[in-house]
Amino acid sequence: MSQIPIERKVLNANDAIAAALRERFLEHGILCLNLISSPGSGKTALLERTLERFAPDTRVAVVTGDLQTDNDARRLARAGFPVKQITTAGACHLDARMVENALSDWNLAELDLLLIENVGNLVCPTSYDLGENSKVVLMSVTEGEDKPLKYPGIFYKADLMLLTKIDLLPHLQFDDALACENARQIHPGLEIIRTSATTCAGLDRWLGWIEARMHRPTAA
Amino acid sequence: MSQIPIERKVLNANDAIAAALRERFLEHGILCLNLISSPGSGKTALLERTLERFAPDTRVAVVTGDLQTDNDARRLARAGFPVKQITTAGACHLDARMVENALSDWNLAELDLLLIENVGNLVCPTSYDLGENSKVVLMSVTEGEDKPLKYPGIFYKADLMLLTKIDLLPHLQFDDALACENARQIHPGLEIIRTSATTCAGLDRWLGWIEARMHRPTAA
Repeated sequence: MSQIPIERKVLNANDAIAAALRERFLEHGILCLNLISSPGSGKTALLERTLERFAPDTRVAVVTGDLQTDNDARRLARAGFPVKQITTAGACHLDARMVENALSDWNLAELDLLLIENVGNLVCPTSYDLGENSKVVLMSVTEGEDKPLKYPGIFYKADLMLLTKIDLLPHLQFDDALACENARQIHPGLEIIRTSATTCAGLDRWLGWIEARMHRPTAA
Repeated sequence: MSQIPIERKVLNANDAIAAALRERFLEHGILCLNLISSPGSGKTALLERTLERFAPDTRVAVVTGDLQTDNDARRLARAGFPVKQITTAGACHLDARMVENALSDWNLAELDLLLIENVGNLVCPTSYDLGENSKVVLMSVTEGEDKPLKYPGIFYKADLMLLTKIDLLPHLQFDDALACENARQIHPGLEIIRTSATTCAGLDRWLGWIEARMHRPTAA
C-alpha cells in the first residue's frame, strides 16, 4: 500500500470543503489570508501589531491554530476583535474542516477580513487549502538565508513573504539580500516586505498590501 | 475513511524498520541521536561546532534531512567526517526507511556515533522512530517561551533539550527561566543545556552529555 493515493484522497476531501469556504468568502466579500511559517517566526506578534492598527469598527476576525493551548488566541483577543483558537491535538496543520467548524458561530456577513494563523510548520500547512485568497509566508531573520531553497513549497505558493524580526539584523550574521534572492529564485517576482513587530517597521506597507486586496476597504 | 488507522499502519511499518536499525546500532555499539527542532533553530550550526571539537579519529557520521538542497551536508562535510544528505522531496520528516537507505554505503562496524539531523519541523518528526537511542530537541531563544506548551510532543519524548542561540539573549525579550519551566511542565526533570554556536557556550556540556552515553568513549 503506497502512501501517495491516501494522501491524495485526504487532500481531495479537503479541497472540496475549501472550495465551499472560498465560495462563502466570495459571497460575503471577505478577504481571507492564510499565514504560514516555522514555529517562532513571529506570526502572533505581527498579528498583534496588525490588529492594533485597525480602527475599532474594522470587520476583521482571526482564527489561530496550535497543537495545544489557547495562548495565541488570548494574546490576539486583547485587540478587541473576534478570535477563535483551533487546537489540533497533534495535527501538524490546519485543514479546511477545522476552519469551517471554527467559523460556525460567526456571521460571515459581518466580516470583511479573515486572518488565519496556521500551525507553526513550514511544510505541511502548504498542502492544505483553507479557502484563502492568498497564502502569506513569514520568515524571520534568525532562521538562515537558505530556508526558501530547503522548503520551497510554501515560498512558491505564497503571494507575499514577510521577512520578520528585522530589528535583530545588527546582532546577526544574516544576509537579507541573499534571503530575498533565494525566495525569488523559487518564486520569481515574489513580493517581500521587511517587518519588525518590535519597531513596527514595514507595518504600513503590510497594512497597505491587505487594504489593496480587500473588497470593502477598512479605515486603518 | 478515517485518517487514523492509515497513519497507524504507516507508523507500524516504520517501527519495524526502526527496530531493525536499533538492533544494528546496538550490535555495532553505535550511539544514535535524532536532533529535532523548528527550521532555523540552529541544528546545523550546532552540529558544525560539535564536529569541529571531535578528534580526527572519532568514529562519527552524520545524516541530515531536508526537503531540498544538500546545503547542510556540504556545510557539515567541512569537518572531515562522513556526512550523507537525505532530500525528502516534500516529506515533512525523516522515516526509518530513509535512514536505512542512507546508511547502506557505510560500514556500521566503523562507527561509534551517528548524529541524525531531522527535517526542520517541530511536529511530524516526533512520531517517526529512526532507531535512535535518544531524541534531542533544540529550541532557540528567538522562538518564544511557550513553544513547549504549544508543541508538547517532542519535549515530552526528548531526553535532552538544547536551548540554542543564547548569545542573542541581550537583544531579546525572552525569559529563559520561563522557557525551561514550560519544558519541564511537559517533561518533569528534562535535562536542558544552554548553548550558543556563536560563542560556543554550553558546547563542553553537550559534548560531555554525548560522551557519557557512548559505548566506546571518544577523545573529544
